Amino acid sequence: NKNYKLTLLPGDGIGPEIMKVAVDVLNEVGRKHEITFTYEEKLVGGAAIDAFGTPLPEDTLECCKQSDAVLLAAIGGYKWDTLEANMRPERGLLGLRAGMEVFANLRPAVVLPQLADASSLKKDIVSGTDIMVVRELTGGIYFGEPKGFGTNAKGERIGFNTMVYSESEVDRIAKVAFEIAQKRGGRLCSVEKSNVLEVSQLWKERVIKQHENYKDVELSHMYIDNCAMQVIRDPKQFDTIVTGNIFGDIISDAASMLTGSIGMLPSAAVGSSGPGLYEPVHGSAPDIAGQDKANPLAQVLSAAMLLRYQFGEEAAAKSIEEAVNATLDQGFRTGDIMQEGMKLVGCTQMQEALMKN
Amino acid sequence: NKNYKLTLLPGDGIGPEIMKVAVDVLNEVGRKHEITFTYEEKLVGGAAIDAFGTPLPEDTLECCKQSDAVLLAAIGGYKWDTLEANMRPERGLLGLRAGMEVFANLRPAVVLPQLADASSLKKDIVSGTDIMVVRELTGGIYFGEPKGFGTNAKGERIGFNTMVYSESEVDRIAKVAFEIAQKRGGRLCSVEKSNVLEVSQLWKERVIKQHENYKDVELSHMYIDNCAMQVIRDPKQFDTIVTGNIFGDIISDAASMLTGSIGMLPSAAVGSSGPGLYEPVHGSAPDIAGQDKANPLAQVLSAAMLLRYQFGEEAAAKSIEEAVNATLDQGFRTGDIMQEGMKLVGCTQMQEALMKN
Ligand SMILES: CC(C)[C@H](C(=O)O)[C@@H](O)C(=O)O
Ligand SMILES: CC(C)[C@H](C(=O)O)[C@@H](O)C(=O)O
Repeated sequence: NKNYKLTLLPGDGIGPEIMKVAVDVLNEVGRKHEITFTYEEKLVGGAAIDAFGTPLPEDTLECCKQSDAVLLAAIGGYKWDTLEANMRPERGLLGLRAGMEVFANLRPAVVLPQLADASSLKKDIVSGTDIMVVRELTGGIYFGEPKGFGTNAKGERIGFNTMVYSESEVDRIAKVAFEIAQKRGGRLCSVEKSNVLEVSQLWKERVIKQHENYKDVELSHMYIDNCAMQVIRDPKQFDTIVTGNIFGDIISDAASMLTGSIGMLPSAAVGSSGPGLYEPVHGSAPDIAGQDKANPLAQVLSAAMLLRYQFGEEAAAKSIEEAVNATLDQGFRTGDIMQEGMKLVGCTQMQEALMKN
Repeated sequence: NKNYKLTLLPGDGIGPEIMKVAVDVLNEVGRKHEITFTYEEKLVGGAAIDAFGTPLPEDTLECCKQSDAVLLAAIGGYKWDTLEANMRPERGLLGLRAGMEVFANLRPAVVLPQLADASSLKKDIVSGTDIMVVRELTGGIYFGEPKGFGTNAKGERIGFNTMVYSESEVDRIAKVAFEIAQKRGGRLCSVEKSNVLEVSQLWKERVIKQHENYKDVELSHMYIDNCAMQVIRDPKQFDTIVTGNIFGDIISDAASMLTGSIGMLPSAAVGSSGPGLYEPVHGSAPDIAGQDKANPLAQVLSAAMLLRYQFGEEAAAKSIEEAVNATLDQGFRTGDIMQEGMKLVGCTQMQEALMKN
């Protein structure tokens, strides 16, 4: 009988509601697959600011590092929007990523057949889309030094950040991406802006070098501006995408929006070893928090990703994904993915349907 | 009788073919509106590399600066893709922008009623979309110092660029954007990443400050990742967008692609005074160059933008736009915008139809 130690970070907004569903699902699946979970719940983001005056308490980060994997719900809300930048909930997330050294962010953008109509794109354009965006998460312009405020030669104030990558930073994210592409469609597209940026030239050069170890993967290169067009024009052309932190932030959000059901998308952030961070792509939706309206499926699918990527528990992961699938087939829909002829349910009813399946 | 001195930069690929159409149209419109044009043609991009070994000869830049306005077609092609970054055609474009000090790039993304079906988005989502992206063009990470290659503390190679804005750089682009929003729908959305980047915090702060002078414009703020989602989810929510160089590069390309007819979109790059640079949004399409297949309409509409923004020749600009409109109404379509039931024509035939109108 296996036991895994999970840190739970419900965070803000709808976070606690959807986390509850994921935990119940994990326990249920655990019973069937002879896995037990030990949970520790910690505060992060706005909830931590309210309780301790900081978005990432030492104790939260320590607990995450000591556990086998971390399940996060969502962070942020209007309430903390007026705080100065260094004190905002998002900083907790950035601190977690850096502190846990989870440099590879896996963001699948999959169009589920049941939800293809929900996309703002034409059905024949999006149906069958299955993109995996591998985003570098602990480097680039998010963390580059120097950064801050200063004065220029004319005596005016300036704000500045540095977009920087080292060889080993590119090498390790490229390795992760090539290995994922190998297990998927065998095609990897590296996205950068090497026609303008030196940092992208180094990026491209190292990705090409890493390709020598993965000759069975077909490698292509695309500028970020063109990529933003191509995901809209013909998303099915993509299999796996690898890109830097800010470009990945933008392109993974675009890719997830074109599926039309961002409330369904999980993500994972993993390092070379140690616990990974699993969380839904959507935000904390403060406008519907506490009203039993939240869609818990992305959170539940994040738990499935955790079982697969962290522990190799393929059967348990699959059984969660199949339950989600069956629930959609039965017509259950929360408000965000509601369509004509389907059954509108809240978070609790969605959980009930899910547990049965 | 007014006379305007134009520098023509046909550039590469389909550039010369579509430039010819624009010049014929300008001359025709000039006859009707008592305007004459004096043209000087110069090389830039790949064509200049072949002839002079540099993508932007001194003489080309000088001629541009001495003229009343510059009409550019397109730059680049496979042929020069293997040259080292500093010697590539695109560098000619960056040099032109910096040399002419055209810091404000106006990129309209308009869905023409005749072409709404061509979009990969559902018709009811895109119909009526009319976004103006105002992109900062001579600052930010494109030109920020320091940049280049170096070595980090571990002795590895690094590549780096600096994203930097000064107060006056933000002030002047914000001013342009507020004034454009005033003449349009009265709404301006400033796009940045101030939850992570200091440079974006300065950006946001200065845009808010500039807003004091334009209280009749409604100002909103959006993070770049959210903006990449929102243009896909509901493009009609936007009126005018103002953003930095790299974010503008990405978001204007996304916006133009969702219209479904990038072959129709003109753009302008203007400074505080002096000649502006007018060019189509699309590229040089080397695959169809010289085959009489190119769509000249974006080039022609760029000439209309030139008449309007540079010289205030509203009547002449309108007459070009009306001719384009009539030609589309008559069903003429080049390959890139072809649809069932329409008349497929080449560049020459499109010109003929246009001249009649
Ligand atoms: C909240 C924000 C700091 C974060 C990011 O930019 O990485 C978010 O947009 C994301 O993509 O997870
Ligand atoms: C060709 C390239 C340097 C250029 C840019 O990035 O600005 C292009 O993408 C554009 O948007 O005009």
